[in-house]
Amino acid sequence: MALCAPLSVEDQVVQPMVDASPAKWHLAHTTWFFETFVLPEPVFDPAFAQLFNSYYEAVGPRVDRPRRGMLTRPSLERVHAYRAQVDERVARGLAEGVLDPARVELGLHHEQQHQELILTDAKYVLGTQPLRPAYRATDRGASSSPAPLGWRSHDGGITQVGSPGGFAFDNELPRHDVLVHPFQLATRALANAEVQAFVADGGYRDPRHWLSDGWTTVVREGWTAPLYWHEDALYDLAGVRAIDPAETACHLSYYEADAIARWLGARLPTEFEWEVAAAPLDPARGNFADDDRLHPRRDGALFGDVWEWTQSSYSAYPGYRPLAGALGEYNGKFMSGQQVLRGGSCFTPRGHVRATYRNYFPPAARWQMTGVRLAKDAA
Amino acid sequence: MALCAPLSVEDQVVQPMVDASPAKWHLAHTTWFFETFVLPEPVFDPAFAQLFNSYYEAVGPRVDRPRRGMLTRPSLERVHAYRAQVDERVARGLAEGVLDPARVELGLHHEQQHQELILTDAKYVLGTQPLRPAYRATDRGASSSPAPLGWRSHDGGITQVGSPGGFAFDNELPRHDVLVHPFQLATRALANAEVQAFVADGGYRDPRHWLSDGWTTVVREGWTAPLYWHEDALYDLAGVRAIDPAETACHLSYYEADAIARWLGARLPTEFEWEVAAAPLDPARGNFADDDRLHPRRDGALFGDVWEWTQSSYSAYPGYRPLAGALGEYNGKFMSGQQVLRGGSCFTPRGHVRATYRNYFPPAARWQMTGVRLAKDAA
Amino acid sequence: MALCAPLSVEDQVVQPMVDASPAKWHLAHTTWFFETFVLPEPVFDPAFAQLFNSYYEAVGPRVDRPRRGMLTRPSLERVHAYRAQVDERVARGLAEGVLDPARVELGLHHEQQHQELILTDAKYVLGTQPLRPAYRATDRGASSSPAPLGWRSHDGGITQVGSPGGFAFDNELPRHDVLVHPFQLATRALANAEVQAFVADGGYRDPRHWLSDGWTTVVREGWTAPLYWHEDALYDLAGVRAIDPAETACHLSYYEADAIARWLGARLPTEFEWEVAAAPLDPARGNFADDDRLHPRRDGALFGDVWEWTQSSYSAYPGYRPLAGALGEYNGKFMSGQQVLRGGSCFTPRGHVRATYRNYFPPAARWQMTGVRLAKDAA
Amino acid sequence: MALCAPLSVEDQVVQPMVDASPAKWHLAHTTWFFETFVLPEPVFDPAFAQLFNSYYEAVGPRVDRPRRGMLTRPSLERVHAYRAQVDERVARGLAEGVLDPARVELGLHHEQQHQELILTDAKYVLGTQPLRPAYRATDRGASSSPAPLGWRSHDGGITQVGSPGGFAFDNELPRHDVLVHPFQLATRALANAEVQAFVADGGYRDPRHWLSDGWTTVVREGWTAPLYWHEDALYDLAGVRAIDPAETACHLSYYEADAIARWLGARLPTEFEWEVAAAPLDPARGNFADDDRLHPRRDGALFGDVWEWTQSSYSAYPGYRPLAGALGEYNGKFMSGQQVLRGGSCFTPRGHVRATYRNYFPPAARWQMTGVRLAKDAA
Repeated sequence: MALCAPLSVEDQVVQPMVDASPAKWHLAHTTWFFETFVLPEPVFDPAFAQLFNSYYEAVGPRVDRPRRGMLTRPSLERVHAYRAQVDERVARGLAEGVLDPARVELGLHHEQQHQELILTDAKYVLGTQPLRPAYRATDRGASSSPAPLGWRSHDGGITQVGSPGGFAFDNELPRHDVLVHPFQLATRALANAEVQAFVADGGYRDPRHWLSDGWTTVVREGWTAPLYWHEDALYDLAGVRAIDPAETACHLSYYEADAIARWLGARLPTEFEWEVAAAPLDPARGNFADDDRLHPRRDGALFGDVWEWTQSSYSAYPGYRPLAGALGEYNGKFMSGQQVLRGGSCFTPRGHVRATYRNYFPPAARWQMTGVRLAKDAA
Repeated sequence: MALCAPLSVEDQVVQPMVDASPAKWHLAHTTWFFETFVLPEPVFDPAFAQLFNSYYEAVGPRVDRPRRGMLTRPSLERVHAYRAQVDERVARGLAEGVLDPARVELGLHHEQQHQELILTDAKYVLGTQPLRPAYRATDRGASSSPAPLGWRSHDGGITQVGSPGGFAFDNELPRHDVLVHPFQLATRALANAEVQAFVADGGYRDPRHWLSDGWTTVVREGWTAPLYWHEDALYDLAGVRAIDPAETACHLSYYEADAIARWLGARLPTEFEWEVAAAPLDPARGNFADDDRLHPRRDGALFGDVWEWTQSSYSAYPGYRPLAGALGEYNGKFMSGQQVLRGGSCFTPRGHVRATYRNYFPPAARWQMTGVRLAKDAA
Repeated sequence: MALCAPLSVEDQVVQPMVDASPAKWHLAHTTWFFETFVLPEPVFDPAFAQLFNSYYEAVGPRVDRPRRGMLTRPSLERVHAYRAQVDERVARGLAEGVLDPARVELGLHHEQQHQELILTDAKYVLGTQPLRPAYRATDRGASSSPAPLGWRSHDGGITQVGSPGGFAFDNELPRHDVLVHPFQLATRALANAEVQAFVADGGYRDPRHWLSDGWTTVVREGWTAPLYWHEDALYDLAGVRAIDPAETACHLSYYEADAIARWLGARLPTEFEWEVAAAPLDPARGNFADDDRLHPRRDGALFGDVWEWTQSSYSAYPGYRPLAGALGEYNGKFMSGQQVLRGGSCFTPRGHVRATYRNYFPPAARWQMTGVRLAKDAA
Repeated sequence: MALCAPLSVEDQVVQPMVDASPAKWHLAHTTWFFETFVLPEPVFDPAFAQLFNSYYEAVGPRVDRPRRGMLTRPSLERVHAYRAQVDERVARGLAEGVLDPARVELGLHHEQQHQELILTDAKYVLGTQPLRPAYRATDRGASSSPAPLGWRSHDGGITQVGSPGGFAFDNELPRHDVLVHPFQLATRALANAEVQAFVADGGYRDPRHWLSDGWTTVVREGWTAPLYWHEDALYDLAGVRAIDPAETACHLSYYEADAIARWLGARLPTEFEWEVAAAPLDPARGNFADDDRLHPRRDGALFGDVWEWTQSSYSAYPGYRPLAGALGEYNGKFMSGQQVLRGGSCFTPRGHVRATYRNYFPPAARWQMTGVRLAKDAA
C-alpha cells in the first residue's frame, strides 16, 4: 500500500504492455494468494477467484494476462477493502494459530515479489508515457566516473549449492553438489560508462557481438540503447536527468548483457559461480527498495542494485520436486526459455533475497531492474 | 461532463481496444479542438498540443492512437481544469465577438460527435470486462414481439441530395442531382427477433450468406451473434438482461447487416435512397441520447435508435472541396474502406443529425450503435 | 500454355506472396473450372476438386489460398495431362452439341482472366527475386518525354451504363440509367514523368497528399516509389532498364493513384464517367497482351496499357442478380473493400474487355498492371 | 544428390515454412560453404555469395531466410553445374595438397548436416501437402507391441565430457570435468504406444502436464498429437500407414517430450547423463540414413533412430572459444533459446555422430526427427 501511495488511481489501472501488470492488480492478486492458499476459504467475493488468479491452471479459469489492464472494476477502493478484510483474517488466523505457518510465510515472500513488480511496472507506466512524470523526487548526487573494474579469483571444486535450510522456494531445492571450475568475478557490476562506450562503438549496430536471437530482437525492436535512455539522459523514478557514468547500468536484457560482455572480452557468470561468490556475504547489505533510492548506485555489492544475468538457463535441480497441488505451478512450469538472475535489486525488499535465490526472466526482457556482472575463466 | 458522471476515474482512462478511446481522452481532445481551431492560441499547456491531437498531420506529431490508454497523466482532474479554462475562454471570446462563429459551430458539432463516442466507448469498457457493470440503471419494460415489417414505396427520379444550407460537414457538399431508381424501404429497422432467427438458422456458420471479407472476419473473430449478446441475454448500459425480440437490433457490423439482408431476400439501401426517404421527416423525432434510454427501442423512426448501414461506400460528392488547412483532414482523408451510415442513434445528441448527414465506419466495426434497415427494388 | 513457355518448371510452382498464385495453379484451376462448371462431371482425378477450387464455398472444401505454392504435386506434367484431357472433352462436347454454350463462353472468359494473372504473377515471381531474370527479351526503344497532358470534355446527363447485350459478367448487369455530371477526362494516362516528379517532390513522405489508410500503408510497407522501381531503373518482363519518362506509369495502387491525382490538382474518374467516355471507342484498339510488348507504351488509348483506377468502390448495380448456384460466387461476394478499375492492360488478352467491363482490386494492391487517368469537373 | 533423386524439380524449390529450406537451397548452400571457406576464392558466379549464404553476418548480406523458397533462379540444373565445378575444384585442390584439411573436413561434416536436413525438409514438403506423396516405397513390416521399458543405472561422479580428440565442432570443446549424480536411463526411447496412451488420456488437453510455454504453444497451434499423425495413421517417407505401437515415437517437440515424461513420472536426461551413458558405445551402431529405412524402428540403441531431447539448454562449455573469423558464427551465436539433443537419427548419415555431439533446436520444433528417452534419479 505504501508503494502505491505516490501513484494516482489512474496510474494503478492501466497495463501499457502485456508484461507490466497494473498496481491494482498486484494488490488484488497478492490478496487473492492469501485468500486462496493461506486462508481456509475465500469469502469476500466469489468473482475474485477468477479475476485475480494469475496463472494457476489447477485453480480454474482466469482473466487473460493481456486483459488485466481492462479491469476498471472492481475499483481500487474495493480492492483496498478486500486487502483489509484478508489482512484482518490472516492476522486473526495467526493469533488463533489456525493457519499453516509455511503457507503464511510463502504468502509473505510472494507479496515481496509483487512489491518489486509494483515498482517495476509503475516505472514502465510512468516512464513510457509522453510526460514521463516522476514517481517521487530524490536527489541523485553529482555525476562521476566509475571505480576501476577489478577481478576477484575463486577456486573451483565440488561445492554445495541450493538452499541449506530456512525459507526457500522449491526451485532452490534440493541442495546438491556441483563442480565449479576456477573463475574470476568482477568486483562490481558494469556501470553506465561501459554501456555508453558500447553504444559509442556502434555496438547496437554490429551483429557480430550478438547472439542470433538477440540480433533479431535488436533489429525488430529498434534498440539503440538500454530501456529508458534518451540520448544523454535517462528516466528513473525521480524523473529525467543526465546519465551518470558511475552508476550501475540497468534495464539491460540478457541479449544486451551477453553482447556487452563479449565485446569486453569477458562472459557472464554461471549461476553457481555467482552463488559460490555470494555464499559468504551478508545478503542484507546492498542497495534495496527499503533504501528508497529506487535506482542503482555505484557500489560493488553482489546483493541489491541490479539483478545480475547469468549464463545459466532456468532449469530444475537434480531431484527437484515441485510443491504439491496448485502451488506446484509457482515455479516449475516456467523452466524453459528463461535465464537465471541472481542477487536482487534496488526494487527488491531488503531481506527477500539470499545467495541461493533464483530469479528468472526471458532473454529479451528489459523492463526489470537488470544488469551485468562479468566473469572470466581463471587466468 | 454529465455523460462521464456515472463513470469512475478508472473507467475513464483505459482503452480496451484501439478503436475505443478513453473518456478522459475524449474530454481532452474536444477541448484541444476548441483551443487549436477556435481560440487564437493555446495557452494551457504546450504539451497538450501533441497529447490530444487525434489525427491532424498538419498540426504536428501526436500520440499514436493505440497508446491513448497509456496516458495516466495528465490526470482527469487536470483535464477538467483544461476544459474549464477553455470553456471560459470560448465564452469570453463569444461575448467579445472575437471568435469566428463558423469555427465555434464546428467545434460544437465536433463535441457532439465525441459525446456519442463517450457513450459508445464507455459501453465497450464496461461491457467487455468480466463483471459487466451497468453504466446506470434503467427500466427497459417487458419483452414483446416486433411489429410486422412493412414496406414503403418511393418513386425514383432525379433528386437533389446533400446539404441545402445550414450547418453541414464538408462531406455533405455540394448539393447535387442524383438519379434514384424506384425503391421500397422497410417501415422499421430489423429487430432482435429477425437476428435471432438468423442465428437459429445457422446464419453465422454458412458462408453463402456473406461477403467474402465478411466471412473471413466471422471465422477469424469467431462471431456467432451480435456484439454484447451472450446466449439469450445481452449487455446494455443498464446491465445484462434477456434479449427483447421487439427491440431494434444493434451492434451489427456492415458484414452482418449485409448477410442478414441477403438471407431475408432484401438488400441495404443506398445512402441516397435513405436520404430521399428521410428528407421530409423531422430529424429531431426519434430515440436520441437526450431521451436517456441509451438503447434502441421498437419504433420505426428513420432518425435515432441505430445508425443504419447503407450499401454506399464513403466517397466524395462531385465537386467536393475539403475545408482549407488542417481542418481539411476532418473528413476527406477517410474516403476509402468505409461504408456510409445514416440517421443517428440512441447515443447521438438530439439535434445533431439531419437527412443529409453522413456517418462512416469500416465494414467490420460493430462496437458502434449500428443496425439494419432493409430496402428493395420497386415491385 | 504459350504464356507459360518462357517460364521454368520452378517458376511455375512458387507463390511469393499470398495474392500471386503459381502459374501451375492457374493452369489447373482454369481446367478445373471447365471440368466443374462446363463438363457433365469431373473424371480426371477426384482429388483435384479440392486442390484447384479457388473460392467457391458451395463446391466444397479447398486448399487455403496461402498454400497454393506448397503444391509440388500434382506435377506440372500431370497438370498438362489434365488440361489435355479436359480440352479434348470440351472440344468433343462442343462438336456433339451437348454443352451449354453460355457456360463454355464463361469458361473462356474466365480463362482469359487467368491468362492476365499468369503474366501478372509471373512478373512478381521473377521481379522480386534477387536475380530479377527476364521473362523474355524485348526491345523497348529509346526513352523520351511524354506527350502533353490534355483534357477532353464530356457532357453530363442521364445515360445508360452496364452491358447492352453480348457476353458480360453478372456484375455488368442490369443496364440502367445513371446521372453523370459534366466532366473532363485526361487525354492519356499518367506517364512515368509525372510519377517521377511526385517522387522528386517528396510525395511519398508527405501525409497531406494521402488518404488516411493510404498513408498508413506507405509507412508500414516503406513505399518510396511504384512497385518494381529501383532508383532510376525499373523491372519489366524484359529485365531491368532505365525508366522511360514517356511510358504510361504502372504498378500503382489506388492509394498512390489518388495521392498523385490530388497532388496534381485533379481527381480520379468515377467508373461511369470512364464508361461514358469509352462507350464510343473500339475496345480492341490499344496495347494488349497479344501485342507481346507486355509493358505499357505511350499512347492515349482508353483501352489497354494499364487498368485505370476509378474513385468508384465496387458494388452492385441496382437490380443486380448473381448467377444461380455456385457461380453466384464468381463476382458478387467481393463487393466490399475494392475499387473498380476500367479498360484492360498490356497483360489483358485483346478482345477480353469492353466499355462496361468492371475489374476490381483492393486499394493497396499494386502488383497488378494498374495506372492512373485523371479527371476533373467541367470547367 | 542421391538424396534428391526421388524428388521432382518442383519438390526441390518450395519452402512450406520458414524453417524448412528447399532441397535446391541445401545443395547450393553446402556448395557455397566449400567455395567460401575451403577454396581459395569463389569463381562460379559472384551473385551466389549473397544467394546462398545462410547466416554468416561477417560474410556479407544474404537472402532473408523466409525467402529461400522464392529462388526459382538459379535453376536446379545450374545449381548442379555449380556443385560439379566446386566438387572438381575441391578434388583437384586435395590432389594438389593446397587445401586446408581441417577446412575440408569441416565442409564434409557441414554437408552431412545438410544431408539430414534435406530428408527432414523434404518430408515436410511432401507430408504437409494434400496428396501426401511418398518419397519412395519401403516395406515397414507388421505392427506389434513395444518391448517393456527397462532402466539401466549409472554411477555418478566426476567425469570428463566433451570431445576427447578427433573431429569435433567447436561447441564440443573443451573437454572438461563435470559432476554427474547417480541416475537411471531408459533402455529404449519412448514408442508410439506410450504416446498413444498419452493422447488417449487427454494429455494434449490438460495444462497440468505442460511447461507454461508448452501449453501456450499447444493451444495456439492446436496440437492434438505428434506432427504427421492423422488419427490412427501417420505419414512417413513411404506414405500414409497405420501407426505401429512398437516403433520409436518421433516428431515430438521438447514441450511434448517434457510433458509426456512428466506424465510418466520420469524426466528427460541432462546432456551429460546421456553422454556418460553413450560414451562406451559404438556410435555407428543404430538406425541411420544409410540403412534407408528413413523412419525409426524399435530397438534400444542410444545412437540413431531419433534425436533425443535433453533437459539441458544449449550453452557454452567452460572455456569455450568459437572458431576464428566468420566460422565463429557456425555454432556459438545460437546459444540461447535452444535445447540440446543427442544421438542422431534415422535421417543422420552413419558416422556423423559421436557421444559428445551436440545438436540443438528450439523447444517448439517438431519437424525434426526427434524423440524421447526417459531418465530418473538413482533409486
